[in-house]
Amino acid sequence: MQLPPDPLDLEEFRRNGHALVDWVADYLAGLASRPVIEPVAPGEVRAKLGERAPEHPEPFDEVLADLDRVVVPGLAHWQHPGWFAFFPAQTSPPAVLGELAAAGIGVQGMLWSTSPAATEIESHVLDWLVDLMGVPQSWKSTGPGGGVLQAGASTATHTAMVVAREQCRQRTGAPAEKMVAYTSNQAHSSLQKGATMAGLGHIRLLDVDSEFAARPAALAEAVAADRRAGLEPAFVGSNIGTTGTAAVDPLRPLGEIARAEQMWHHVDAAYGGSAMVCDEFRSCHDGLELADSYTFNPHKWLATNLECSVMWVADRGPLISTLSVTPPYLRNPASESGQVIDYRDWHAPLGRPFRALKLWFVLRGFGAEGLRRMIRNHVGWARALAERVDDHPRLERIAPVHFALVSFAHCDGNAATDALAAAVNADGRFYVTASEIDGRRFVRISVGSTWTTEHDVDALWNLVAACA
Amino acid sequence: MQLPPDPLDLEEFRRNGHALVDWVADYLAGLASRPVIEPVAPGEVRAKLGERAPEHPEPFDEVLADLDRVVVPGLAHWQHPGWFAFFPAQTSPPAVLGELAAAGIGVQGMLWSTSPAATEIESHVLDWLVDLMGVPQSWKSTGPGGGVLQAGASTATHTAMVVAREQCRQRTGAPAEKMVAYTSNQAHSSLQKGATMAGLGHIRLLDVDSEFAARPAALAEAVAADRRAGLEPAFVGSNIGTTGTAAVDPLRPLGEIARAEQMWHHVDAAYGGSAMVCDEFRSCHDGLELADSYTFNPHKWLATNLECSVMWVADRGPLISTLSVTPPYLRNPASESGQVIDYRDWHAPLGRPFRALKLWFVLRGFGAEGLRRMIRNHVGWARALAERVDDHPRLERIAPVHFALVSFAHCDGNAATDALAAAVNADGRFYVTASEIDGRRFVRISVGSTWTTEHDVDALWNLVAACA
Repeated sequence: MQLPPDPLDLEEFRRNGHALVDWVADYLAGLASRPVIEPVAPGEVRAKLGERAPEHPEPFDEVLADLDRVVVPGLAHWQHPGWFAFFPAQTSPPAVLGELAAAGIGVQGMLWSTSPAATEIESHVLDWLVDLMGVPQSWKSTGPGGGVLQAGASTATHTAMVVAREQCRQRTGAPAEKMVAYTSNQAHSSLQKGATMAGLGHIRLLDVDSEFAARPAALAEAVAADRRAGLEPAFVGSNIGTTGTAAVDPLRPLGEIARAEQMWHHVDAAYGGSAMVCDEFRSCHDGLELADSYTFNPHKWLATNLECSVMWVADRGPLISTLSVTPPYLRNPASESGQVIDYRDWHAPLGRPFRALKLWFVLRGFGAEGLRRMIRNHVGWARALAERVDDHPRLERIAPVHFALVSFAHCDGNAATDALAAAVNADGRFYVTASEIDGRRFVRISVGSTWTTEHDVDALWNLVAACA
Repeated sequence: MQLPPDPLDLEEFRRNGHALVDWVADYLAGLASRPVIEPVAPGEVRAKLGERAPEHPEPFDEVLADLDRVVVPGLAHWQHPGWFAFFPAQTSPPAVLGELAAAGIGVQGMLWSTSPAATEIESHVLDWLVDLMGVPQSWKSTGPGGGVLQAGASTATHTAMVVAREQCRQRTGAPAEKMVAYTSNQAHSSLQKGATMAGLGHIRLLDVDSEFAARPAALAEAVAADRRAGLEPAFVGSNIGTTGTAAVDPLRPLGEIARAEQMWHHVDAAYGGSAMVCDEFRSCHDGLELADSYTFNPHKWLATNLECSVMWVADRGPLISTLSVTPPYLRNPASESGQVIDYRDWHAPLGRPFRALKLWFVLRGFGAEGLRRMIRNHVGWARALAERVDDHPRLERIAPVHFALVSFAHCDGNAATDALAAAVNADGRFYVTASEIDGRRFVRISVGSTWTTEHDVDALWNLVAACA
């Protein structure tokens, strides 16, 4: 008679773990031969699952088999080499291993004292990134600022808005309903969502220039109009790599207005930030010393799986004073010494996993040169693709190629553009996104999957040209 | 000449993954022979790390060696069988494997269409839990409500407060500064933090009864006083398992007041919720049909590693209408059909990892009976410990043993209680938390590590008795 599986048996865990590692390697190796988007109708995945949770433990072999039977046929394969949609959500072998290690170790780093290594490795790795990306030295945890890992840029931006609101309230006494946030009309939807969640009364989506960058004059005019109307300007969000076309806002003039008007200046570099490991992109950072907070997502384009978003603040004081609540069960000598960082005071959650581990694994597994090479490859392939678009008689690029995003339309108008995107996606080897600005439809090709090669970009171009 | 390591080499990934799985198994198997809290001073971990990120890729062997050299000596071992501090942060082999699978697959399930399996497995597993835990059937995703995985209970509670604020604003037109949230003075600090982040003007921490449960009369009085003062009662937070003593608030009378006063009623069952897989604890749920939202953490006590927090809403309409923002690049036919769930509209983040995978692995790896057995073991051992405390002449229990938390003080007063906790922790085999209510210090023994056995609880008691 066979014994039922024991979920805590560590010898079983070894066997199952080895089998799953092999499954993951096979999954990644086999992606190129699958469609990027599996064809699946609403409810089809659920129809394969039992009506009730199992009463008895199931052997891991059955679970593993269901990855192939239930999960894989219901996925959009974000790690597919033909993934050119949205922005990338990269993983990489070092990141996957870092996630495995963090899950296995299973510590909860809400306080320094509840796992010093989790806090110190996070601070240290984010200080490494200050140097790697050339952001202000004062943002290091050894200075007045500091970095913290947030779940995502949406969360980081929302948190910055909450701090901005409290700073404005302390300074002016105005209620949140009278406060105004400003950002480009090309900013990510998280700016609007964050403003809603933070209860800011108004958000102004500023006009952009011909390259889709925020116009400082539009900010100045909007602020003046709002002041005349008795409102309180509180927050400016600048963007390095907007979602639509990867546009870059001029940080310096926006930051100068923010400072003059005593507004919080937050930089959303969710996508573009990763490129700053290469110094040739850093003209985007001109004026960064005028920013109060900055976020970018290693889980987009720095080879680290979800969730992993960096947030830096120029001065950690306002962040901590807004978010710190200390009940008796969290008091401890290390915190009271003032010598340590307690990251629970740097974000909304209390409990937190050991997210820094995977970022540490990635920085060590790739080395700075490996990350730079990946970014430069993607940007180079995107620029080459853009040249082909420019040379094509039926296609028109609608925006400069910042980073590795190419945005273009069909000369025959919106219907032709949508038909082009649909035809490319229908092929099955590639996935691109169709979007729209000011009523004009366009195709976004975002080069950035960890596994994409120059050959994939060439093949995509051949298909685009054939469909155009 | 040796080639530098290639971080994308999948054969390397297999080898490194197998080695890391073995490392995790060895780490967990060896925990009992280590101190629960490694002795480490502020800065000691960082001092072992290089000043700069590595320029070149490092072999994985060196990274793995640094888990032993840098990480392990800097941890508080939450998975140690002698961990009785705070509340547990469980992992288990099935959960670790689920995390590995999710990281390897690397999909981002913001929309149903960006990976249908990620959304459908999440909905399905949370519907399974509706049955397993006996919460209202109408909370299933097939009804008006639905479940979503949030990062943690802090986040779920904060999100509920934002929705409550918008509901109150729509109904009354009151500004957030005039709104009031109510909860027990024993509620988790996340209630205060969430109210701050949501910009609610006031939070009332209600008096509790002798068992530390919120008094409905105190709520009714506070609401009446606030109405007289021209404020707007907006939110009631009830607790199933407070952090101090695992107290349980009376949901029905609190819910009746909330409903009569048109306030949002949120249940924070972060700790206690997991126990509801066993029906003998469900008297706590009396009145649950009067709740608008409910959160509990499988990452505390349901064998699933961080982050994994369940949030149910009785009606998903207000949640989605508060949080939905749809830019053009997220429009897609499936969303517009109304036949699918897009979880990006259920929480603050846009991007989201495939968190449901680990919960699915856990439910299958343990089976319902395995999870019930674990909960019953922990509760049984805690009750036996409580009897020993009751029989001890120098110790006094300060609260009923709900679930698996035993709270007691030394009869000689605060100094003796703190000395007892310090002596127990100094031994190195166990870790307990000292806390305080109304000026009275007490020791919390929270039974709940995945790897704790009855033998560990006995040994802890012997040490407590010897130190007392």
